[in-house]
Amino acid sequence: MKTEGHVFYAGCSVCVDAEQRFATALDPAAFDVEIVHLGTDEGRLPEAEAAGVKPVPALVIDGQPHHINFGADIAALR
Amino acid sequence: MKTEGHVFYAGCSVCVDAEQRFATALDPAAFDVEIVHLGTDEGRLPEAEAAGVKPVPALVIDGQPHHINFGADIAALR
Repeated sequence: MKTEGHVFYAGCSVCVDAEQRFATALDPAAFDVEIVHLGTDEGRLPEAEAAGVKPVPALVIDGQPHHINFGADIAALR
Repeated sequence: MKTEGHVFYAGCSVCVDAEQRFATALDPAAFDVEIVHLGTDEGRLPEAEAAGVKPVPALVIDGQPHHINFGADIAALR
């Protein structure tokens, strides 16, 4: 069974670079990756916060957040 | 041809988690990933710094640094 991964991002250049890099870099045999744009899909904010996402971009794998570089604090997206 | 990737880390728990996660998560068909422990292999510090690595753990793909969470500042490893 594949592991679920979520890339949360918000549309700034730091986020977009990371989103494109990590969404395509993960092993497709092992991961189902969903891209979530929190700037346009604010309904997903609680899910990101529950996973421990603080700044974006962030990659959540197996429920664990990995913050990649620094784009924007998630609080700025509310 | 595969893209070169380097995971630079330094042995603390944040680093080790990220190292294990990302070294095994990248698509093996697309990436050759080398793991570099800067705590024990200080000779690689200039290479990491030249790639723009500031804190570790960091994943360098195609010469671009991606800082994942925050383990230690690279300056603390000198």
